[in-house]
Amino acid sequence: MPEPVPVTMSATLAADAEMARRRRAGEQVLSLASGEIGLPVLPELRERLAAAAHRNTYGPVAGSPALREAAAGYWARRDLPTEADLVVCGPGSKPLLFALMLAIGGDVVVPVPSWVSYATQARMAGAQPLNVPTLPGQGGVPDPDALREAVTTARAAGRNPRSVIVTLPDNPTGTIAHPDTLRRLAAAARDLDLVIVSDEIYCDLVYDTPAGPATSPAAHAPERTVVTTGLTKNLAVGGWRTGIARLPDSTLGRALHTRLTAVASQLWSSTTAPVQDAAAYALTEPPEILAYVAAARRLHENVVRQAARHFTAAGAHVEPVRSTCYLYPSFEPLREHLHAAHGITGATRLATHFAQHYGVGLLPGTAFGDHDDLLRIRTATSQIYGTTEAEQNAALTAAAPLELPWIKAALDRLADVLTDLTGNPVPHQDTPAPAPAHA
Amino acid sequence: MPEPVPVTMSATLAADAEMARRRRAGEQVLSLASGEIGLPVLPELRERLAAAAHRNTYGPVAGSPALREAAAGYWARRDLPTEADLVVCGPGSKPLLFALMLAIGGDVVVPVPSWVSYATQARMAGAQPLNVPTLPGQGGVPDPDALREAVTTARAAGRNPRSVIVTLPDNPTGTIAHPDTLRRLAAAARDLDLVIVSDEIYCDLVYDTPAGPATSPAAHAPERTVVTTGLTKNLAVGGWRTGIARLPDSTLGRALHTRLTAVASQLWSSTTAPVQDAAAYALTEPPEILAYVAAARRLHENVVRQAARHFTAAGAHVEPVRSTCYLYPSFEPLREHLHAAHGITGATRLATHFAQHYGVGLLPGTAFGDHDDLLRIRTATSQIYGTTEAEQNAALTAAAPLELPWIKAALDRLADVLTDLTGNPVPHQDTPAPAPAHA
Repeated sequence: MPEPVPVTMSATLAADAEMARRRRAGEQVLSLASGEIGLPVLPELRERLAAAAHRNTYGPVAGSPALREAAAGYWARRDLPTEADLVVCGPGSKPLLFALMLAIGGDVVVPVPSWVSYATQARMAGAQPLNVPTLPGQGGVPDPDALREAVTTARAAGRNPRSVIVTLPDNPTGTIAHPDTLRRLAAAARDLDLVIVSDEIYCDLVYDTPAGPATSPAAHAPERTVVTTGLTKNLAVGGWRTGIARLPDSTLGRALHTRLTAVASQLWSSTTAPVQDAAAYALTEPPEILAYVAAARRLHENVVRQAARHFTAAGAHVEPVRSTCYLYPSFEPLREHLHAAHGITGATRLATHFAQHYGVGLLPGTAFGDHDDLLRIRTATSQIYGTTEAEQNAALTAAAPLELPWIKAALDRLADVLTDLTGNPVPHQDTPAPAPAHA
Repeated sequence: MPEPVPVTMSATLAADAEMARRRRAGEQVLSLASGEIGLPVLPELRERLAAAAHRNTYGPVAGSPALREAAAGYWARRDLPTEADLVVCGPGSKPLLFALMLAIGGDVVVPVPSWVSYATQARMAGAQPLNVPTLPGQGGVPDPDALREAVTTARAAGRNPRSVIVTLPDNPTGTIAHPDTLRRLAAAARDLDLVIVSDEIYCDLVYDTPAGPATSPAAHAPERTVVTTGLTKNLAVGGWRTGIARLPDSTLGRALHTRLTAVASQLWSSTTAPVQDAAAYALTEPPEILAYVAAARRLHENVVRQAARHFTAAGAHVEPVRSTCYLYPSFEPLREHLHAAHGITGATRLATHFAQHYGVGLLPGTAFGDHDDLLRIRTATSQIYGTTEAEQNAALTAAAPLELPWIKAALDRLADVLTDLTGNPVPHQDTPAPAPAHA
């Protein structure tokens, strides 16, 4: 180990810091980069944390019995019967996913595009990420056929892939892999003896449509699927830092539990005790928690769909989004115009153009593992719900959130920016949309 | 990377779990294994956490400006002028020390004996721990001459040590390296171009004696010393998970800051936001915080010194303890008796004997890197201050804590166990002590 592993700052957190810097400098910015949920804490949840302020002991490495029981109930209600003894809590999904990589060992298959930290974490764990593309419109899950080929080739070359990470629903695309794709993924993982790590932190943010909720690969490969989730996305408490893993009820799962808790004991000891109390309450899902999540989900859906309409009107291609607060528009249909008008030929340049010319923060596809020459960017709507608690609460409870002035202003600004960038007139939400010209 | 790095459960946390199991099974146990501080949270500190329950955003990776400013002030009051921009907060010293290893890279020199997690964390970071013994009575700092030799030999063999970890004051021994040893350590680190990582989490638990506080190696090698601390030990909030690092104000320090925050952004994002608020308050050290720490320090000193008298009366050798709630008695003077009477020839067997015959939990020296044939064990007194908040508060405020019935009972039990184990009559604290027979 001659030099430290090269690690770059998390792209989302770096973008947050950059937007905060510009805001402090007095610039007008529109932050569509980070997926941090800009909503207030549910008062009942806040009260639980405050009431647990006397809790100062480590408690069990895997989390308190109350938290683990609550998590088991949470998954059982999602058709994943769970033993509390196979639940492991950590200070966020991030450390939990990293600890899983250390506990499983070997190289890691990572979908492309996928969340900014999987590949870097694999390298930090001494492994190599093995990039496998996803299928069109089915983000978060590597194409099972391409997965088989990549793993076979890697093994022939002396590498040792032992796990595959999937994101269900997907960040960055907001799409959800088809149940048939998950069945084929499960079969491939079984044939190749891979552990599936299924990051399901967005599973409660699937829009209420006839397509129904996302299916977990744990339904198809229960013996080898680890499911992770947390409170960050559905309850807007990213700053509280808590993540939860459900290990498979199998010989493999129990061995992994032993290794994971050993790694956790050396990496973080335990998860902030008062937060564990609050999380235990949240995971029992009393009515006020369910109502909050449902309201947040509706808000995301309303705003994301409007943003998607803007990108589509501008001539970009957007896969139909079914969940989350994310969009992953492709500007490929606008390649010639972007090159001719702005000299833009890649995603990094495109994102830089948004930031420098318009003060719009979003992330280039490269942050998610895309090649730079693919003109894709990730857009997150979760930072435009308001700058004060009052505005954010109004957004959460509004029947028509798009009519709230601050949300309308942000989306109108996006429309104007896209009009200027693409030359296609993108109408504000209350005017009829003409067809795009450059697509 | 064919197999996962072998990681065993943290010895202290494993011992805690084992003691909890025995207690649930109805056994009478005396827990002297874990250094978790069994005291309640200061009410004012608890209130700060509760008041910050609305804080739900990540904030900066390195910690909030308020926390970093408060930490800078904390160190400045300890003769270590500090820039807030060079402070990095993490969810506990554990993840912070691990992230430092990843950020620095290379192999790590680790003192023997030393805290249970340094060596394992080095292996988890893909490095190799390079064990260097400490000097007698000066735990926590590798013998500077032995350090030079070990690093030179390791480099000749193609290894690449880049850092040395020290613990000031020391866990497991409760001793403090001499200022001259620190000067020689600093010179060796400079000559060998090593980063010094100085774990000073016990720096506020140095007993009030003419010898004064511990000197940080940052005083001798300011350009290359990283200092870490936390609230776990002085304010008894281990379960809150917060650690803080002070990076050197130098080219090296600023480069390390960039790498450390990048690693932190990928490993943990940020530290629990309400805890950061409470920590910022604590680190400004208002009178009630200083009074709490002073009371805890006096309690540790009273109890540790009494426990040391018991071990000494039993014929064990104990280096004079100047800090912490730890003792590291050597049973070498009793080797023949322990072998003849109990078949005990090593530290693991000695610790097992304490647990199985007497229900006394303590840790064998092997947990700290000692060879098993050295008859040393670590004893922590921090779990015998009471089982209820009322008892613990009484212990914290008592002028004569040794007279509190539950503390006296625990220490009398230790005396009786040592009498039975060694054959040397160990008097209870209020009867005169005869000279040991077997030593």
